[in-house]
Amino acid sequence: MIRVGILGATGYTGYELVHLLTGHDQAKVVFATSRSSAGKRLCDLYPCPYDLPLIAPEHADLAAIDVAFFCLPHGESMPVVQQVREAGVRAIDLSADFRLRDADVYTRWYRVAHVAPWLLSEAVYGLPEVYSEQIGHADLVANPGCYPTSVLLALYPLARGGQLADSRVIVDSKSGASGAGRKLSLKTHFVEVNENFGPYSIGRAHRHLSEMEQELSAWAEARVRVTFSPHLLPVSRGILSTIYVTLQAGWSVERLVALYEEAYAGDPFVHVLPAGKLASLAYVTHTNRCALSFAEAGENTFIVVSAIDNLIKGASGQAVQNMNLMFGLDETMGLPL
Amino acid sequence: MIRVGILGATGYTGYELVHLLTGHDQAKVVFATSRSSAGKRLCDLYPCPYDLPLIAPEHADLAAIDVAFFCLPHGESMPVVQQVREAGVRAIDLSADFRLRDADVYTRWYRVAHVAPWLLSEAVYGLPEVYSEQIGHADLVANPGCYPTSVLLALYPLARGGQLADSRVIVDSKSGASGAGRKLSLKTHFVEVNENFGPYSIGRAHRHLSEMEQELSAWAEARVRVTFSPHLLPVSRGILSTIYVTLQAGWSVERLVALYEEAYAGDPFVHVLPAGKLASLAYVTHTNRCALSFAEAGENTFIVVSAIDNLIKGASGQAVQNMNLMFGLDETMGLPL
Amino acid sequence: MIRVGILGATGYTGYELVHLLTGHDQAKVVFATSRSSAGKRLCDLYPCPYDLPLIAPEHADLAAIDVAFFCLPHGESMPVVQQVREAGVRAIDLSADFRLRDADVYTRWYRVAHVAPWLLSEAVYGLPEVYSEQIGHADLVANPGCYPTSVLLALYPLARGGQLADSRVIVDSKSGASGAGRKLSLKTHFVEVNENFGPYSIGRAHRHLSEMEQELSAWAEARVRVTFSPHLLPVSRGILSTIYVTLQAGWSVERLVALYEEAYAGDPFVHVLPAGKLASLAYVTHTNRCALSFAEAGENTFIVVSAIDNLIKGASGQAVQNMNLMFGLDETMGLPL
Amino acid sequence: MIRVGILGATGYTGYELVHLLTGHDQAKVVFATSRSSAGKRLCDLYPCPYDLPLIAPEHADLAAIDVAFFCLPHGESMPVVQQVREAGVRAIDLSADFRLRDADVYTRWYRVAHVAPWLLSEAVYGLPEVYSEQIGHADLVANPGCYPTSVLLALYPLARGGQLADSRVIVDSKSGASGAGRKLSLKTHFVEVNENFGPYSIGRAHRHLSEMEQELSAWAEARVRVTFSPHLLPVSRGILSTIYVTLQAGWSVERLVALYEEAYAGDPFVHVLPAGKLASLAYVTHTNRCALSFAEAGENTFIVVSAIDNLIKGASGQAVQNMNLMFGLDETMGLPL
Repeated sequence: MIRVGILGATGYTGYELVHLLTGHDQAKVVFATSRSSAGKRLCDLYPCPYDLPLIAPEHADLAAIDVAFFCLPHGESMPVVQQVREAGVRAIDLSADFRLRDADVYTRWYRVAHVAPWLLSEAVYGLPEVYSEQIGHADLVANPGCYPTSVLLALYPLARGGQLADSRVIVDSKSGASGAGRKLSLKTHFVEVNENFGPYSIGRAHRHLSEMEQELSAWAEARVRVTFSPHLLPVSRGILSTIYVTLQAGWSVERLVALYEEAYAGDPFVHVLPAGKLASLAYVTHTNRCALSFAEAGENTFIVVSAIDNLIKGASGQAVQNMNLMFGLDETMGLPL
Repeated sequence: MIRVGILGATGYTGYELVHLLTGHDQAKVVFATSRSSAGKRLCDLYPCPYDLPLIAPEHADLAAIDVAFFCLPHGESMPVVQQVREAGVRAIDLSADFRLRDADVYTRWYRVAHVAPWLLSEAVYGLPEVYSEQIGHADLVANPGCYPTSVLLALYPLARGGQLADSRVIVDSKSGASGAGRKLSLKTHFVEVNENFGPYSIGRAHRHLSEMEQELSAWAEARVRVTFSPHLLPVSRGILSTIYVTLQAGWSVERLVALYEEAYAGDPFVHVLPAGKLASLAYVTHTNRCALSFAEAGENTFIVVSAIDNLIKGASGQAVQNMNLMFGLDETMGLPL
Repeated sequence: MIRVGILGATGYTGYELVHLLTGHDQAKVVFATSRSSAGKRLCDLYPCPYDLPLIAPEHADLAAIDVAFFCLPHGESMPVVQQVREAGVRAIDLSADFRLRDADVYTRWYRVAHVAPWLLSEAVYGLPEVYSEQIGHADLVANPGCYPTSVLLALYPLARGGQLADSRVIVDSKSGASGAGRKLSLKTHFVEVNENFGPYSIGRAHRHLSEMEQELSAWAEARVRVTFSPHLLPVSRGILSTIYVTLQAGWSVERLVALYEEAYAGDPFVHVLPAGKLASLAYVTHTNRCALSFAEAGENTFIVVSAIDNLIKGASGQAVQNMNLMFGLDETMGLPL
Repeated sequence: MIRVGILGATGYTGYELVHLLTGHDQAKVVFATSRSSAGKRLCDLYPCPYDLPLIAPEHADLAAIDVAFFCLPHGESMPVVQQVREAGVRAIDLSADFRLRDADVYTRWYRVAHVAPWLLSEAVYGLPEVYSEQIGHADLVANPGCYPTSVLLALYPLARGGQLADSRVIVDSKSGASGAGRKLSLKTHFVEVNENFGPYSIGRAHRHLSEMEQELSAWAEARVRVTFSPHLLPVSRGILSTIYVTLQAGWSVERLVALYEEAYAGDPFVHVLPAGKLASLAYVTHTNRCALSFAEAGENTFIVVSAIDNLIKGASGQAVQNMNLMFGLDETMGLPL
């Protein structure tokens, strides 16, 4: 039985982790922390049956756990990760703090100095479909961002094959409101989101660009530039990314399907749709799956449509998938297919 | 041209007032106040084209207006209403502060002492379908609450006719999220409201009960007791009340329709549906109408179903209707039928 | 391994059954039928990964299964149930055809003659929290309706204790749109349901009244009369019932909580909320749970608020729960808690 | 008073026309036709107070009207338009039948021969912000499609200025479900749309591409190629288009704002947002406005974000705007600003 601690359990990703781990046969939540709600129980904060006590972070007993999940905001996560790693406990960080390999790049995008840059080389980017082997040995996994998960799975086979080197990639993404977290904000007030739809931080403004370009450029062995336009959808869960790429002559939807099926053979959570079908949120919400699909737009322009559940494959589900790999379990254990 | 001041213009009812008055041929917003957003413009706070400056309350020039609308929270409204009345300006208060005729009852429900009880006798309860004549001469109109508007219009013909004297009235109401205001609260976070539905303050806990029982008892000339269960709907606008009454023998849906059509003949905003049709929010959202309908439940139990738009007929639209009556205009001017 | 056949797999309850049974360790779908979509696969009809072939009903091999689930419309179900029972296969019918013990009552409400009235005495009403022992031995289980499940679980402890004998019970229910099925209808067109809310078949018109009164009267050993008002909610899933009862003197919310906790001790899917909390859909959607809660309304009137997921506890989840009991498995196997 | 006939009044655009014309001071609906609902009234089909009789098309008295609005499907519209024009009545066609200047292009996209190609040269493309003068004299106005309205207003100043000549234009559009009409379809079933989001007919498959490319190419005096990806949003109303263009060096968001403000000076329904703000549906739903906004994406790539209400500016509101221009009225009469 893997003994789990959750640092910062009261946001949507923390709650989703508790929910997933409650149904996991080989893991058990030993403690869950909350600075603001210490002393309460999770069922005081959520309409749920989880009678899980929330303890102050300073009362967390690191000796009692095998792995810690971090659901803290970026910047707040890194000092605690450092502490946990120093205690010899394996860590899965759902924040952005260990996703970028270069501390300067981190600082440029997140506008805060990195407090534990020496840990960056130890951190593995937790995209299991690409890095499963490294994750298996990792002591520190940086769980990818929700948007990057949807985009990177959609482009990995092309980038790895050198198809994106000269292409301008345009990513038009749409996310449900849980992606913005549970913190109060007018932007997530029901009346402001409902029956509404709009973009934010578009162009080259959103921090998740840094992860996308880091991984795509590494896979392509060339600089890949991305235009990224996130939008807020009036749904609770899900990210759909519509991605425009220009390829060399000779591609077709059928050839793309074949490329992706081969690239993701053996990946139980990637669902490559046949030619003629297009991904939608309904394919993936409440699951750890990613649905991928393709369309042609003429003149060698192709469209890749990718869908995930932002709280599961885009956050807590992927974190559990990473834990499974770290502890030698079946990748799918405890995860909704 | 009626010169209007709006006190507290940045909530949903204040915004709706600006929206309605912008399309009103005989009224003009002279100033709009906001304590927290003074110096900004309304289009800084809402996705809208209203380039209306927001001024601090202390800069409001009462000499420049004919009527003031108050969109302030209860408790905060009454001292300002007093000040405005002392300046000789007519007032339409959308808060609860002048709705209850008895200051003690006010204090019991709202847990705050009334600072201007002498104004209570001057205040007219602003339900135009019942009190249009008094409203015509009023200097201070207490605009009814949203739930009470939906319930009182649904029961007025029965109460006035003495049909509710011995009946236990059960009101099961459902309101859209704008009824909770624009203030940040986990209760109105998109993810908490969306795909959810539930009751709050049910039984005899909600403050709007006081208004309902005051008016019903006055019309019935007998004590009328109401059980009131509000619920939060995952929609932006609208209140639907499903009301259960037991009548004396001899009633039918057809007889109820006839009673209500007669009671509301000449009331342009009340839409009595024919037997066989039931009200729903779609009948009324984005209008100042109230839709009323009836069903039979056996053993002299009848169901009255009432629907309004909580921000229009339940708040700002009714306030404009009251202004029209106060200034001798056609009741419907500037209001969406 | 229980070998399962699904008769009529293409509606929402059929799809949900496939979804649940796919994750069930001791059951396996051997065939799924569809008259209109025979020859297709489930993933042709739903955005899903279930590559399950749909066969014509006449090709169903009854010898290959241990139990058949019926997701057919009422009236269409009974002749096929009869056939399946004659083949010696156990049956779980999700239609209304075997819920009413009296064929005449069935005919009065459903306006069709019963074709296999002799099976009615063999049929067990599949509410596991009340009839688990009978279900364990049953060959034919009549799975309760969605509204009745929400209402009966909410009233069973009171009815059984004789508390409803003289009470008029008023049930104000609200259901998500999946309750109306996948068949095309203007009533379930997105634009008609979204941002809307309204009642239908209220008073004593809805067929589910027959089940409610049958069970409540049996438990109370006295005639119990129900007023029932269903409403259509703009959500995909969930039923919330707000139920008004008048009890004898001496009851309190705390005493009700104690009564229900005792009545449902050992029932893993019933979640009795503590005094002060009220059920909402968020407690139960995507689970097989029923959340129950209580409020006081004065003068011995109490409100019971009950929530379920209409497709799971109100249909397919309860059907799997019944299958588990019929085959001696743990009641919770394969079901989301 | 302009006497109006509506051909095909029972769909969403027909209903919206009735709604808008009911509030129009200088127009009056003389008749409204429906093949399938002749003999009923509009309030039998919609939850509304419009007691408007629906007549069979063959009973339409063309001598009694000054202008006919056509809310018929493409293909069905053209023979009736021809008939109406032969009767000397002015026509505003909301279908696609007269939008394309070349009958062969029409046939290629709509797969039906044009029955009245000689009327194509008389038809004016009813985009008032571009063709107001021609509309003023037109006897036949082809009201633009909903997507093209959102895209063309977003690109007109750039196309006219020669900025799009060498650019690949990528249009990622998202539309509310009313755009799909009121006809029953699984695609617009509430449960399929709610909490879902996905693309359809992407790449170069959607018929509205033909209109977009026709107008853009005419304005640019060069062939403009568009990649167009429509998506279905879980909202009732609104289209938001996120448009990616590559410009020559030297552009900035501020310069775009200035260009558009100048181009649309005097156009009351175009709302050019200042730099730093982005359009969303909330700016425009329930109005006849189009909101336009801009962002930079590096390397001379810019993003234009455009929002309209698909039923108003994208259909019936624009049709009324065209009627106003045809009859010499103020462009804004009867239209929600």
